[in-house]
Amino acid sequence: MTVGRFRSSCPVASVIVLLLLQVLLIPAPTEASPDRCRQVRSLRDEIAGYRPVVERVLSYVQDQKGYKGKTWTALSEFTDTFGSRLAGTQNLENSIDFMLNRLRAWHLDNVHAERVIFTGWQRRKEFATLVSPRVKNLAMLGLGGSVSTAPEGIRAEVVVVTSFEDLINKSSQVSGKIVVYNQPYVSYGETVVYRSMGASAASKYGAVATLIRSITPFSLNSPHAGQQSYSDGVKKIPTACITVEDAELLNRMYNRGSKLEIFLKMDSKFFANATSRNTVAEIKGTTNPDKIVLVSGHLDSWDVGQGAMDDGGGAFISWNSLVVLKNLGLRPKRTIRCLLWTAEEEGYIGAYAYLKGHKSELEKFNLVIESDEGTFQPYGIQFHGSETSACIMAEVAK
Amino acid sequence: MTVGRFRSSCPVASVIVLLLLQVLLIPAPTEASPDRCRQVRSLRDEIAGYRPVVERVLSYVQDQKGYKGKTWTALSEFTDTFGSRLAGTQNLENSIDFMLNRLRAWHLDNVHAERVIFTGWQRRKEFATLVSPRVKNLAMLGLGGSVSTAPEGIRAEVVVVTSFEDLINKSSQVSGKIVVYNQPYVSYGETVVYRSMGASAASKYGAVATLIRSITPFSLNSPHAGQQSYSDGVKKIPTACITVEDAELLNRMYNRGSKLEIFLKMDSKFFANATSRNTVAEIKGTTNPDKIVLVSGHLDSWDVGQGAMDDGGGAFISWNSLVVLKNLGLRPKRTIRCLLWTAEEEGYIGAYAYLKGHKSELEKFNLVIESDEGTFQPYGIQFHGSETSACIMAEVAK
Repeated sequence: MTVGRFRSSCPVASVIVLLLLQVLLIPAPTEASPDRCRQVRSLRDEIAGYRPVVERVLSYVQDQKGYKGKTWTALSEFTDTFGSRLAGTQNLENSIDFMLNRLRAWHLDNVHAERVIFTGWQRRKEFATLVSPRVKNLAMLGLGGSVSTAPEGIRAEVVVVTSFEDLINKSSQVSGKIVVYNQPYVSYGETVVYRSMGASAASKYGAVATLIRSITPFSLNSPHAGQQSYSDGVKKIPTACITVEDAELLNRMYNRGSKLEIFLKMDSKFFANATSRNTVAEIKGTTNPDKIVLVSGHLDSWDVGQGAMDDGGGAFISWNSLVVLKNLGLRPKRTIRCLLWTAEEEGYIGAYAYLKGHKSELEKFNLVIESDEGTFQPYGIQFHGSETSACIMAEVAK
Repeated sequence: MTVGRFRSSCPVASVIVLLLLQVLLIPAPTEASPDRCRQVRSLRDEIAGYRPVVERVLSYVQDQKGYKGKTWTALSEFTDTFGSRLAGTQNLENSIDFMLNRLRAWHLDNVHAERVIFTGWQRRKEFATLVSPRVKNLAMLGLGGSVSTAPEGIRAEVVVVTSFEDLINKSSQVSGKIVVYNQPYVSYGETVVYRSMGASAASKYGAVATLIRSITPFSLNSPHAGQQSYSDGVKKIPTACITVEDAELLNRMYNRGSKLEIFLKMDSKFFANATSRNTVAEIKGTTNPDKIVLVSGHLDSWDVGQGAMDDGGGAFISWNSLVVLKNLGLRPKRTIRCLLWTAEEEGYIGAYAYLKGHKSELEKFNLVIESDEGTFQPYGIQFHGSETSACIMAEVAK
């Protein structure tokens, strides 16, 4: 299993290229070595032969008279119209219906939805207040999948930790307390483990709740939401994110020896057998219609924003890539299938459902592309796959 | 009247240097010309003679074993302990008492408070919701001095404007509507006029309320607060700031021709004959104790933050500059007076009260320094004063 990273000049967006199974296995990355790529030298001419097509696509999407700005405009209308699209809400179902109509209106092939059944989670009333040594409301967001507090809430003393190591050092003080994590932000990928595992780690030592510094380098009284999951065998305790500045404030007060007390009240709802839909559209391939290149993003979002970046942008560049080919009358050899996943935020629920439903056809998927890291100026392509595939990607990305 | 701007190497903070009367008169700026400064050449030797003292102060405040970090630490403890300090609240009065004790503990001279009487304003319940074409809560902050809505709130159609010119162009559509200002951010100084005057400008044409894009280049669902005032002769209408992203959202929807309706409910309280205090401390001058150099910042803040930047930092560098001199055993020729203003946020109320109370001694004030633009890396000194004074300042700042 080989993983390569290549600089790309792709003007549409940063994308992650993955083979479907390997998304779920998460392989260890190694660099594609030029020496190992000798075997694909015979492919160079074919790849180079597509240059005129690439140029045509690029000039079309960069030209004001062509497709330039159309994806952004469509996305802004979509997010402005539907707002947040949490899995299990009417907002999401309405936006899926809208997308199905839109994809049909563009005369894409095989437009349909595939049902996904899951247990949903919904935020209801929630708040956190520092009550001692002074009263201060803490801006917070309960984390996806968090249990509620008792209806009367929790009032408890606070232990502030700055890392999992620090938690272990202070573990004898944690029982019956609210643990506040004030871990420094390193990167989303590295730091998010505090959000996803923080509650379980503290619950092991008897914490009654956790409040976790938002996984962001910066906030303006704006906590950041996200999913978390409980480890097996630990008591499920309520958990929420607080802002960077409040985490720092609590840390400073704690380090000065103040006895901190927080009152926390959280109420969320789980609903089993919720349904939603993965949305599918295609351009059928000419010579190899049974081989599939999958391009994808997710339509659902958290409940506290408009989901324009996470992941409206990814979803819209995916289906618009089909529209661009259609508009230019370009027909690929393989089928290009666009997947707009559902319930991604709750833990890739739509993707897992799709994998389960299509397990028998896995060998058909030649390439799976997902974009969910924001649609900024692209800085590269991340690729997981065989050494041969890595070499082909390296050649394409040149 | 001459105004000069000089680059300064002052390591403490960016400061604004003003002659007290001229703060209130706001003179037009002109550059100090080197040619005109010939007259102060005789002062050069004296100013240059203070270099060893300047070096001693600089090395003390930059040295870990000296005063380095002490101002920041004191400020963080202060803001963490007292939180927001809106004029008229017990928080502010407690923090003034704390400061008086602190200044006395440092054995500064003539530590006392001077009473200020004013009409206070306090935010109570407030919210704004886009109700059509879809429901979305708008993060908002009622502006200081805004009147309340009727108890049942206001539901009205929206007109979005992007400038005062645009308001005039659309003035025939404004009657009975809520005007949303989505002016682009140029700079705080230039753009803040929309916050301070936006309600009155729209009220002239019969608007029932205004919502104004926050005066900031950037927000994360975080509206920015501030004071506004009604012009004479217009009906006072409720007014609040909304976030940059919501103002942009409403603007996009409006430009697409959507009929927007907003429900606004605001409740604030005015209380006459509120009292607070300007806080004073001094180092008495040796040769000219009756001549005064005033250094200042304001202790009060808005109610929705901790007031660390606005203006804890300015207040703390002001009184700490006296402490640094005291610690080094340095005695100035003139008296250095530290003023920690009160009720600045409501429109310089403490400063106006001080001016009124000390009108007869105005000629004593040789230099008035205020710091209220944030305590970042300093980038210069802004000076308002006579040509002679400007030339002296230019020489000092070299």
